[in-house]
Amino acid sequence: MYDQSAAFAALAARYGTRFSRSQALREQHGGGETHHAIVAPDAVFFAETTGEVADAVKLCAAEGMPIIAFGAGTSLEGHLVASRGGLSLDLTHMNKVLRVSPEDLDCTVEAGVTREALNAYLRDQGLFFPVDPGANATLGGMAATRASGTNAVRYGTMRDNVLSLTVVLANGEVIRTSSRARKSAAGYDLTRLFVGSEGTLGIITEVTLRLHGIPEATAAAICRFPDLVSAAQAAIAVIQYGVPIARVELMEKRLVDYTNAYSRLDLGSADTLLFEFHGSEKGVAEQVETVCGIVADFGAAEFSWATTPEERSRLWKARHDAFYAVLAARPGAKGWATDICVPISELAGSVALARDLVETAGATAAILGHVGDGNFHVMFAVDPDDPAELSRVRAINADLIHHAIAVGGTSTGEHGIGAGKVDYMREEFGDAAIALMRVLKSAIDPQGILNPDKILPPT
Amino acid sequence: MYDQSAAFAALAARYGTRFSRSQALREQHGGGETHHAIVAPDAVFFAETTGEVADAVKLCAAEGMPIIAFGAGTSLEGHLVASRGGLSLDLTHMNKVLRVSPEDLDCTVEAGVTREALNAYLRDQGLFFPVDPGANATLGGMAATRASGTNAVRYGTMRDNVLSLTVVLANGEVIRTSSRARKSAAGYDLTRLFVGSEGTLGIITEVTLRLHGIPEATAAAICRFPDLVSAAQAAIAVIQYGVPIARVELMEKRLVDYTNAYSRLDLGSADTLLFEFHGSEKGVAEQVETVCGIVADFGAAEFSWATTPEERSRLWKARHDAFYAVLAARPGAKGWATDICVPISELAGSVALARDLVETAGATAAILGHVGDGNFHVMFAVDPDDPAELSRVRAINADLIHHAIAVGGTSTGEHGIGAGKVDYMREEFGDAAIALMRVLKSAIDPQGILNPDKILPPT
Repeated sequence: MYDQSAAFAALAARYGTRFSRSQALREQHGGGETHHAIVAPDAVFFAETTGEVADAVKLCAAEGMPIIAFGAGTSLEGHLVASRGGLSLDLTHMNKVLRVSPEDLDCTVEAGVTREALNAYLRDQGLFFPVDPGANATLGGMAATRASGTNAVRYGTMRDNVLSLTVVLANGEVIRTSSRARKSAAGYDLTRLFVGSEGTLGIITEVTLRLHGIPEATAAAICRFPDLVSAAQAAIAVIQYGVPIARVELMEKRLVDYTNAYSRLDLGSADTLLFEFHGSEKGVAEQVETVCGIVADFGAAEFSWATTPEERSRLWKARHDAFYAVLAARPGAKGWATDICVPISELAGSVALARDLVETAGATAAILGHVGDGNFHVMFAVDPDDPAELSRVRAINADLIHHAIAVGGTSTGEHGIGAGKVDYMREEFGDAAIALMRVLKSAIDPQGILNPDKILPPT
Repeated sequence: MYDQSAAFAALAARYGTRFSRSQALREQHGGGETHHAIVAPDAVFFAETTGEVADAVKLCAAEGMPIIAFGAGTSLEGHLVASRGGLSLDLTHMNKVLRVSPEDLDCTVEAGVTREALNAYLRDQGLFFPVDPGANATLGGMAATRASGTNAVRYGTMRDNVLSLTVVLANGEVIRTSSRARKSAAGYDLTRLFVGSEGTLGIITEVTLRLHGIPEATAAAICRFPDLVSAAQAAIAVIQYGVPIARVELMEKRLVDYTNAYSRLDLGSADTLLFEFHGSEKGVAEQVETVCGIVADFGAAEFSWATTPEERSRLWKARHDAFYAVLAARPGAKGWATDICVPISELAGSVALARDLVETAGATAAILGHVGDGNFHVMFAVDPDDPAELSRVRAINADLIHHAIAVGGTSTGEHGIGAGKVDYMREEFGDAAIALMRVLKSAIDPQGILNPDKILPPT
């Protein structure tokens, strides 16, 4: 076991009130947004520069003490659980946009800048950053968890939109992973090594991102179907046809009802697809015409429009709040979201299976999906104090993951492994690939101080 | 030094004539397409299955003998130079398309399938694989070098289009790097670890790729400019405007002249941009209209069309043969291609610098670029027996690389580091990042048997 005293004394001396051991702050840094039990770190440090992060990492490394990077705290998979105590490194004070190059369609931000703050900053320049996981996460956290969300079907995930990172390694050294050229064949892909590494290989302190021009025209549509599988099949057909839609989101009827109640909307009451189209005026009109033709084949009864920016914002806000809408349906409950992603041809079958499992268990839950990528969630509202219920939900999650892996998919499209899904890693990757991941982890973080017990299953 | 005898005896016994030590075959496997001197391996083995690759790797590993994967042999940066001898592992017999899922827009191929063979296979299904480096390279080789080419501006590079790999590790273990879900947040990004690793971390034996529907409409255009910088500026403006062009290639006047002679074409004689547009009929018409408006501002004198598939093929064939057209201008010469990639705002200045350096040196050379990505080449025809000339070209290459790195770019957009650019790696990445790459290499290939002396600079 490590000795905290020297490192904590040094941090307190150097950084004053930006280092804290208060119980409330520690607990706030040891959780997330779901059912995972809070395990608080021993202290919290609010870093303001990459140099300070390096300083903190060196102090922790000298003692072999764990260090867990913290952004907006919106993890759904227990990424922030301090299973071995140690220091929570809060990066939210690192919230400066460092540069924007409109002519190169890129920018560099500190890790604690949130996606909403970045988009507010960019709006006047006619630019936006498309990756949108719903939560107002920090861009450092989104890079660390390889986040995606509603726009990924068109614009890709953090994997595709991060050009370069500044990272503090476990020995306190600082690297920049890449140039900001749009492509490069130089050396190992250090950028992608850290994107999705969940703070276990290094601490991301700066992120260089690809940006996109705000499209000339945008349209959003709400499309209602006779049943869930028809809606899923319509989404598959749109993707297979190659329509360059910006978003296509599946909401099952039950979720639409919860959302109407929670967000005071009237989306009707049906299994629904929400579409968004980006492009030129003519291009959007053409996409809409094509999609209208396709969805009619799957029994789409109505196609209604959110044409003003305000209506669209309200619609997507409601979509993003769907998780809270489910929780509101069962006061006192905690959330638990499954996150499988399957090849698109397997989507309808997977959604049908999920529906069956939920019905059989009689759970309070609703299905929601970024179906253009083959990714969907079952969002459960669970009683965290009922072991039998947690066990039933755990079994459904496991069944869906086994199914996804069997059909060529993954246990997690976007939420990450964290502490919550380590037990499925061997099944998904096989022993030899897990051994390779362990070789990487041991080589890069030989003491195992960076966010321990995440991603890799116990040996 | 390793002892080859046991491994070679075993390979000869097990695989008969598929193992060879013939001088001609060895030399053919120790070179590439450019000025790099051939350094032949000690033997060549034609593997037919992943299991055979694993067998060969284990035999080499037991002796600590180098093993160098070989595809089409189209390397431009000395990737195949057997600087420490050893075994060349030829994968061209592994040329089967293993599966195609039209509904999922993906496929899995053996590493030795070439991109042209794959596209011929896919054509009847209305699908294509877009990454096109010009050479008819193997898909395993393209993955290993993170290849890109003319279509990357729209469809991305191998980094973006590889879903998963089967890889034989240095210990002979076989892994699959990922599922074939379109996105995943599960674990370290092993796929991107191997894409671009140039055979130094593992041997790629199977590649799962994203496919695209053949566009409803395609148009190609040839656009002539008063000078090179105007052409580059027009390309930049098209990109900054956000037109989703499929290709935009810069060819300087001198190269157009060489190409007209070599490929018996009449492209005129001017600094030229070649465009290709993909989309629906209406979408292509709209893109063309937009681009016509933009290029007029930069003095574009003519905009001519290749409308039939035959004309388009002829045009792109000539573009791909440009390298050979330059060589044909100086019989007996060898090629040397620079490969910098810069942020798009720096493109025009970088092209102008390249033109100045070439003029000053009086070299036989021409500029060609995938300018939508900020990537361009100076293609030199050099006398490999004239040390003074080689030294002049080396100096120009170095000047361009220093410039690219100084303006936020990279030494190589797509050709890779190989043996040719290891000396620039520290300048591009810094000591700490190079140390991290070395940690990765040592951890994954502790004996250093996989394609030694590539990517990483000497310690």
